Formats: sequence, structure tokens, C-alpha cells
Amino acid sequence: MDQENSSTFTHQISARIRLVTVPNNDIPHLHKLITQMANYHNLTEYLTVTETSLSNTLFKSPPFHSFTALILEVSPNPFPITPHKDLSFNPIIKNNFNLKASMLDPQSNTFRSENDVYVAGHVLVFPSYNGFFEKPGLNMDQIFVRKCYRGLGFGKMLFSAVASVAAKMGMGMVDWVVADWNGESIKFYEKMGAYYVSDYRLYKLYGEKLQQCANISG
Amino acid sequence: MDQENSSTFTHQISARIRLVTVPNNDIPHLHKLITQMANYHNLTEYLTVTETSLSNTLFKSPPFHSFTALILEVSPNPFPITPHKDLSFNPIIKNNFNLKASMLDPQSNTFRSENDVYVAGHVLVFPSYNGFFEKPGLNMDQIFVRKCYRGLGFGKMLFSAVASVAAKMGMGMVDWVVADWNGESIKFYEKMGAYYVSDYRLYKLYGEKLQQCANISG
Repeated sequence: MDQENSSTFTHQISARIRLVTVPNNDIPHLHKLITQMANYHNLTEYLTVTETSLSNTLFKSPPFHSFTALILEVSPNPFPITPHKDLSFNPIIKNNFNLKASMLDPQSNTFRSENDVYVAGHVLVFPSYNGFFEKPGLNMDQIFVRKCYRGLGFGKMLFSAVASVAAKMGMGMVDWVVADWNGESIKFYEKMGAYYVSDYRLYKLYGEKLQQCANISG
Repeated sequence: MDQENSSTFTHQISARIRLVTVPNNDIPHLHKLITQMANYHNLTEYLTVTETSLSNTLFKSPPFHSFTALILEVSPNPFPITPHKDLSFNPIIKNNFNLKASMLDPQSNTFRSENDVYVAGHVLVFPSYNGFFEKPGLNMDQIFVRKCYRGLGFGKMLFSAVASVAAKMGMGMVDWVVADWNGESIKFYEKMGAYYVSDYRLYKLYGEKLQQCANISG
């Protein structure tokens, strides 16, 4: 283990969820998180996202009106609870999670965002629509917590942050897909009250077939 | 059959797909189409959409940057092929479909949009995002053709219009869900080259459970 690239949390850990607002240091971190998630899903061969594509897609509209990313940060020190400049999303802070045992972040240097603050996870969301309903929804495209930070309640913190945004924006639902082999996530979502829509199949048209189909319209 | 509320097409039928642009006469038609689709899916008990909610959600951004509706119109007369004022979507016109037999629209009065022009179907789309990919996608939330106009190729015309929008906007995919009992649609989509993403489950959080989960974040 490279000492310089790892941090140990001994008794407590604090967490903050904040908006990824403008192209900044977050983008490389977000790209690395997405890559780790693709790796977890065994989908790296399909990965085409780049730091540039993230910068180009995430900041085209006010937060939550189009593709939007929230990032989870952790620190051994409490996060200051101060009014935030960006009123579109007030950072969610939970200071002083108690740790049962000390824990090590082997990639803390890679994911350092400030002094003693480390990026630990993310969610990607965008507005969704079901024409049968009065209110739009919020689609949760990705939710991810880095391996060393799992089991502490950070997934629940991210998921409830998404639910909170949806509720505050007057949206009627949060919707998402989950891999059918991911029993742990499924158990978590069902515990949170999510409803499994079992009778629908997911379809996609892409690549050459998309172009062929587009050509029918001329 | 009420003579005043029905039209007969004898030899030919023409079709046009155009944008539902500003709150106008389209909204009542669109609401009726959505209601017919819900009825087809046996989901009317979940239907909460209103004409007002459609007006409020469909026109909040430039077309295809948020929730957007396209409408299919038919007429016994050819549609004039003239440059359209709204450059964000050039109407797609296919004049003179040949009919094998004469056909009757029993609700032509209800769905009349102009003299001898009748609303026959719709699609609802919005931008979607998969963080693994470089390019955003276009989600097709609803696609519907009124019963009397099925089997003539209008579904294909609507679907390829969506593919065309996605391709022209530089999007990487069209994605949607289909009810697993809807074998005819599934066959159609697979013929068009769509890929069935079999290993994902669709989840939703809504109602009281959404609020409970939102409250965790405070």
C-alpha cells in the first residue's frame, strides 16, 4: 500500500452531498467514479464517456432541469454547516458517523477534492416523464459509493437526497433501473419502499440500426 | 354510427407528423390520445394527466430539450409540402398512402384539427442520459396510433421520426419500455433493430414512500 496515496479514518467520518456545478476539479473525479461503477457492472467495454463529454452534458441547464450530478464527499473532520452560495441545492451534511473499526481509503490521493476531503460517490439524475401522470419524475441514472465507503449508510444518504430533490421540485416519482443480479441493491430499494415494475421490458435502438431507422424519415 | 362524427377514407390517405408547439387545440386531442392509450394498457385508474398539466410540462424548453410531443395527422387530401415556420422540427409528410379497402374513422369529429385533417396518433419524448456513454439519448415515453389507423405503417412513421430526431441531435440512442404482453409491439421493435436489455429491472418510488424517503434528507 502506498502510504502517500491512502488515508485512514479512525473513529469518525463526516459526509457531504453537493452539486457538481461548473466544470472544475470534480469532473476528473466523477469520470473515475463512473469508470469504477462500469467496472463493478462489468461494462467497461461499453464505456465511451469522457471528461469532455461530462463537461458538455452536465451544465447545459439549471440543476435538475436536465442531466445533473451530485457528488458525495467524506472527511475525518466535520463539514462546516454554512449557508451555501448555490441555492439550487443546499449541501446535505451528516457529520460524525461513528465507525466501528478504523478504515482505510487506498485511493484517497486520487479522489482528494480539498485538504482532508475525499470524493466517495455520486448520483446522476435527470427529469423523466410518464405521459399518464400529472407530474414529471426524476430519473436516477447512476448511484455509486466507492468500495471502501460501503456499508456506512452513504448509499441511503445519496438515495434520499434524490428523493428529497424530487419531492421539493414537485415531481411525482423517482424512477431507475437496477441490474437483476444486484440482489443487495434490490433489497435496499425495496426496503426504501420502491415498487418493482415487473411487466415492462427495456429496449434501446443505437448505432447503425438507429441510423437506418432515422433514414426512413429522410 | 353517428354520421356527423365519422369520416370515410376511400382510396388514399395522407399523413403528417408535426410538433405540438404552443398550447393550442392540440392539447385536448393529445389528452384524448393519452387516455385512449391508457385504456389500451388497462391503466386508466392510474391516469392523472390533465390538459393543464400537459400545457405546463410540454412547453418549458426548446423542443426535444425537455418533454416534447409530436402529433400524427391524417387527411384524405395530400398535405402541402411547404417550408415550416418552426425550424426545430420540419414536419414529416407522406402523401397518398394507398388503401386496400375503404376505412372509417368513427371519431373524426372529436379529433378534427383542421378541415379534413384528423389527429391520429402521438409520441412523447424527452432527453435521457446514461452516464457510461459519451452521448445523451432520447427516451420515447409513449407512442400511439388510434385503432382505426393501425396497420398502415403510421407506427413505423412515428418511430422513425423519433430515431431521426435523435440522430440529427447527435444523440447516441433511443430508449423506451414496452409492456411484456404487447407481443405485436415487441415484434415491431425487434424488426426495426431494437435491442432488448433483458437484465435490468425497472423501479419506481412514489407517493407516501417518496415523501418518507425525502424526509430522511430533511
